[in-house]
Amino acid sequence: MSAHSEPTALHPDRLFPAEPGTRAIARRLYAAVRALPIISPHGHTDPRWFAADQPFSDPASLLLTPDHYITRMLYSQGVALEALGVAPGGEERQSPPDPPAIWRTFAAHYRLFRGTPTRLWLDWVLAEVFGADVPLTPDNADEAYRRINARLAEPAFRPRALFERFGIEVLTTTESPLDTLEHHAALRTSGWPGRVIPAYRPDPVIDPQTPGFVANLERFGALTGTDPFTWRGYLDAHRARRAFFASFGATSTDHGHPTARTADLDAAAAAALFERVLRAVRAGSLASADAEAFRAQMLTEMARMSLDDGLVLQIHPGCWRNHNAALFRRFGPNIGADMPTPTDYVRALRPLLNRFGNEPTLRVIVFTLDESSYSRELAPLAGHYPALRLGPAWWFHDSPEGLMRFREQTTETAGFYNTVGFNDDTRAFLSIPARHDVARRVDCAFLARLVAEHRLPQDEALEVARDLAYRLPKQAYRL
Amino acid sequence: MSAHSEPTALHPDRLFPAEPGTRAIARRLYAAVRALPIISPHGHTDPRWFAADQPFSDPASLLLTPDHYITRMLYSQGVALEALGVAPGGEERQSPPDPPAIWRTFAAHYRLFRGTPTRLWLDWVLAEVFGADVPLTPDNADEAYRRINARLAEPAFRPRALFERFGIEVLTTTESPLDTLEHHAALRTSGWPGRVIPAYRPDPVIDPQTPGFVANLERFGALTGTDPFTWRGYLDAHRARRAFFASFGATSTDHGHPTARTADLDAAAAAALFERVLRAVRAGSLASADAEAFRAQMLTEMARMSLDDGLVLQIHPGCWRNHNAALFRRFGPNIGADMPTPTDYVRALRPLLNRFGNEPTLRVIVFTLDESSYSRELAPLAGHYPALRLGPAWWFHDSPEGLMRFREQTTETAGFYNTVGFNDDTRAFLSIPARHDVARRVDCAFLARLVAEHRLPQDEALEVARDLAYRLPKQAYRL
Amino acid sequence: MSAHSEPTALHPDRLFPAEPGTRAIARRLYAAVRALPIISPHGHTDPRWFAADQPFSDPASLLLTPDHYITRMLYSQGVALEALGVAPGGEERQSPPDPPAIWRTFAAHYRLFRGTPTRLWLDWVLAEVFGADVPLTPDNADEAYRRINARLAEPAFRPRALFERFGIEVLTTTESPLDTLEHHAALRTSGWPGRVIPAYRPDPVIDPQTPGFVANLERFGALTGTDPFTWRGYLDAHRARRAFFASFGATSTDHGHPTARTADLDAAAAAALFERVLRAVRAGSLASADAEAFRAQMLTEMARMSLDDGLVLQIHPGCWRNHNAALFRRFGPNIGADMPTPTDYVRALRPLLNRFGNEPTLRVIVFTLDESSYSRELAPLAGHYPALRLGPAWWFHDSPEGLMRFREQTTETAGFYNTVGFNDDTRAFLSIPARHDVARRVDCAFLARLVAEHRLPQDEALEVARDLAYRLPKQAYRL
Repeated sequence: MSAHSEPTALHPDRLFPAEPGTRAIARRLYAAVRALPIISPHGHTDPRWFAADQPFSDPASLLLTPDHYITRMLYSQGVALEALGVAPGGEERQSPPDPPAIWRTFAAHYRLFRGTPTRLWLDWVLAEVFGADVPLTPDNADEAYRRINARLAEPAFRPRALFERFGIEVLTTTESPLDTLEHHAALRTSGWPGRVIPAYRPDPVIDPQTPGFVANLERFGALTGTDPFTWRGYLDAHRARRAFFASFGATSTDHGHPTARTADLDAAAAAALFERVLRAVRAGSLASADAEAFRAQMLTEMARMSLDDGLVLQIHPGCWRNHNAALFRRFGPNIGADMPTPTDYVRALRPLLNRFGNEPTLRVIVFTLDESSYSRELAPLAGHYPALRLGPAWWFHDSPEGLMRFREQTTETAGFYNTVGFNDDTRAFLSIPARHDVARRVDCAFLARLVAEHRLPQDEALEVARDLAYRLPKQAYRL
Repeated sequence: MSAHSEPTALHPDRLFPAEPGTRAIARRLYAAVRALPIISPHGHTDPRWFAADQPFSDPASLLLTPDHYITRMLYSQGVALEALGVAPGGEERQSPPDPPAIWRTFAAHYRLFRGTPTRLWLDWVLAEVFGADVPLTPDNADEAYRRINARLAEPAFRPRALFERFGIEVLTTTESPLDTLEHHAALRTSGWPGRVIPAYRPDPVIDPQTPGFVANLERFGALTGTDPFTWRGYLDAHRARRAFFASFGATSTDHGHPTARTADLDAAAAAALFERVLRAVRAGSLASADAEAFRAQMLTEMARMSLDDGLVLQIHPGCWRNHNAALFRRFGPNIGADMPTPTDYVRALRPLLNRFGNEPTLRVIVFTLDESSYSRELAPLAGHYPALRLGPAWWFHDSPEGLMRFREQTTETAGFYNTVGFNDDTRAFLSIPARHDVARRVDCAFLARLVAEHRLPQDEALEVARDLAYRLPKQAYRL
Repeated sequence: MSAHSEPTALHPDRLFPAEPGTRAIARRLYAAVRALPIISPHGHTDPRWFAADQPFSDPASLLLTPDHYITRMLYSQGVALEALGVAPGGEERQSPPDPPAIWRTFAAHYRLFRGTPTRLWLDWVLAEVFGADVPLTPDNADEAYRRINARLAEPAFRPRALFERFGIEVLTTTESPLDTLEHHAALRTSGWPGRVIPAYRPDPVIDPQTPGFVANLERFGALTGTDPFTWRGYLDAHRARRAFFASFGATSTDHGHPTARTADLDAAAAAALFERVLRAVRAGSLASADAEAFRAQMLTEMARMSLDDGLVLQIHPGCWRNHNAALFRRFGPNIGADMPTPTDYVRALRPLLNRFGNEPTLRVIVFTLDESSYSRELAPLAGHYPALRLGPAWWFHDSPEGLMRFREQTTETAGFYNTVGFNDDTRAFLSIPARHDVARRVDCAFLARLVAEHRLPQDEALEVARDLAYRLPKQAYRL
């Protein structure tokens, strides 16, 4: 069977249905979207990369150590996080002690990623960005490391050059409201034409269960010249920081709450809740119910501000962060121990939607980690409320099967036009084109089936493919 | 790619799998069921149409304004309901002010329905019923309108003529227990042989949270000569109206409760609950828990009566009606703002099933809007209790992907023979054949895969296809 | 269409995708795993069969009466359990009164199993084990009965001969901690080389809601020479019985709890809970919450013991046993009236995982009847915690569609290597090869699609197929 063992990850037909007629349609659709510019309206890359445009350090700290998809899988099979360069204390070393050893450890466990999107993304990065052999094996690992390491020193592999080579039209990073946006500021005065913009993610000053919440508020007030310990001043601080972010091109806010719960208190009740929460945080006696109520109310406050300033409101709910307590104590967040939970939307979003859901100028984009909500709750809600759109398959579900289930389970009720195209949502900069390519291929595969089953004429499918790849994300995020 | 832009919605192979071998099997199966008479055992058409047999008014008020699948999708993309002819106050205008303008608005947004069942149904109605060009476009919209409008004036397009042309063997409407059934009465004396029968839907006199509940009970008593404010008289009123409905051919009751909860109180406790609920409703102090408990008990009471009179009991649970408060205040119910909720069955149905689930003469048909319950709860329940059958994919899930998921997720545990064939559940009369055709095609596609994968011999698949299309609904609903 | 009515259940390509290219790949993969030895690490066969090696009694009591997949389906369609040989009082008759009549009743209802895995398994047993014609029909039923009955008297159809013919390398039975393991003891001294080992299933002494719990504890103490009514003695009794089971080759424990809840109390609190539960059981006043808390704590205690003795811990949660009260009173458990319930894992397992989830030497294998948890909870958990593995699709989901959904919904997040291959989990000994064959075919079909869509090279798919069929179960269960 050795004739079949050539690398297939980069086969031009990858991810297309095997049935020849359907595959031919998928090819035609994909040909029309393959080279469209990348709109990346939500993600977690580091703006410093593009501001400083310094070479990346080494293959391991670029591609492996910060990628929680990779560290979690290796950890699940007994590889210590330290062996992957993850440092106790929660900070990634800029230069882990022995990058080639990390790389070899990864190569020795590459089989674990069979059937996963990480495999598809990594194969793309190795082959397309660096021209390395795929699949990676223990035998070719050292050669791949040397090749990639050498390339990283070349000008063509600096962040801005890659950004341009990748065809990125706009890239959004996600920043704390306490961030000075210094890198974004540097970018705007640098003369480089690449469009890198921030999104406003105020969780550190909205979630009263955040460690250091009061100190965060103090800094929030200092940055904005308001009194952040009064309800009015606190809201003014948000308005000021939203305007500050918008001045750097931001078009959206983002909210990572444990649930999708919203509330619609009147101003007096909201102010009273804020004061009760503040007192409780200071006293170390914050009740979960009050924390949840405050986060819920703040989503509605954010929507109210969005009506004024036009920022698109994203909600990423339903994740139990840092589920592994021992690992969190040792390594901090974002090491692959976050877990999805059952997430309600029909009940949770009702207060916000009843307040503002009929506003045609409001744009709320909602995501889920609970796929059972696609057909039961999210598609019905998005197929009715003018303010609501569905974000794409997210995180664990940003994968061929996951992206396909998203289309299969939302399209018949919400249509294509209540969705917003693709988000890569990644901190792995080099994988961005691979992720968009997977999403485009899966959408073309889905559309090809509709065409092959005579459910949609091919010319309409072609228009939809272009809309999903380019027009919808641009429009939905007001880019 | 213009060679591919011909309309494909009405391709003879539509909805069949693309793989040629499987498609050939699907064709053979479908050929055997395509022309079978339509059994429509549950729906929401207006019996007046068939009693009066007057021409339909115009294309917009026939095909667009009352169709909440259409109004919700257009509303979700910023089209005002008024622009679709939906009138404030909750009543559809018989003649909306400018039907051609409504039609043009719809045509301008037809792209929104790509990939939805509405597109399939509408294409069928346009092409097969009216001979109009599909797909509808802004360019051909006026011509389509004129053509349809002209046809509606012809005798062949009156309700009875269409009923006959559609090959409908029996059509069930759904009526309030307070309905006089005057149109059904007129039908039975009209000499027209079409079989149109009512189903008993007593929600207005069972759900104490219905506006006007006490007035409804008064009318309930007046219609039946009972005292509806005593438990005994109230139950007698049900018995009388069930018998009245049965005298017009009814074979079923239907219950649209927020949950599937049932209860099995003894007679004294049930009477006490009834009295407590009545007092609370009159005092404006009804507790949700009591309302829920009363609805729960009444499902068991209805089952008890079904054992006597043989009516099939349908339960349609798990919908949050009128989720959009502002729109409900302005336009009333049924404008596309109902939302599914997570729905429990294993716990909820246990009281009823423990009381009557082993009765071989009882027939309970249960539906869901929560697809996660198919394999987890509904198929296991229906694969055990003799009294229980599964209704088909419902409402949001009455679509190619939804119907396929129903078969994929229920068959292996419940088999085909604990399901009841297809319900169109529609008020859109002209779409009934299209909906049954979609269901037959999807069932044949599913069966064709079983045959192609050598999981079922083709002769057995053929028998199943016929059973699903015709024999099972007739038998399950005792028609 | 009679040319197509030949039996296809045993077609060599059964369960492979119809698309010819993909089917060809599936065939190649399957050829490499078809004949691998069977590892059956979890099931419910009777060790007495192999210890005594007596002929099976008759076709009905061997193949029909004890199979709750069969009895539940026939019961759901109005066949009395007595007509299938199920005896009131909960014990299966060794010789039901009229086995040929039971067989004929089954044959008359064989159509009910169309599209179910039971049909696939039975066809395999009839055709491959006994050389009978398939499909079974009322016409050939008597001949099939005679043929099977005659075969059962032959030496080649005794339990040990079949075990060998089936290529079983190891078979695990599941036993109560109160079991003397006399049949296992007899087996080990019999000289027969077949490897049949027990698993330790302590539910009867862990679940305080078990009827006869106190008497069970008394016997537990008597068997181990401990005082089972002290916390320390109770735990020592477990240790002693685990060691006893291990001495007969056991490598695993198994726990069938209503939920997946775990707890991590300190020793004093656990002891206090144990004492409170004991007092309440004796007083007939056990609170559900205490029963649940005790089961939860005991899972963590079992994990702690597993760290010492190396036994693999299996959790089978989320089943509502004996849902049909009337049938339970009449016939006892295991007659097909158990129902799945929504099951939480991310919250429920956290206490155990936070205590021991990072232990590389612990092995916890978790199952579900709630498929919505595959992608939402189980794959994310198993893709992170080193101690956790996912059991295969279980019970209602041990079927072609169910097994495929398991792979489609877990692989992208957990990979293949955090799963443990297949469990047949059956008491139907003769169906074991059929069940493993179905699982191997479905895994090859899934892998063939990955290869055909260029998501995995074929040589890697081949390695995965072998791992899933043989290496992973052996390794996961430490066999």
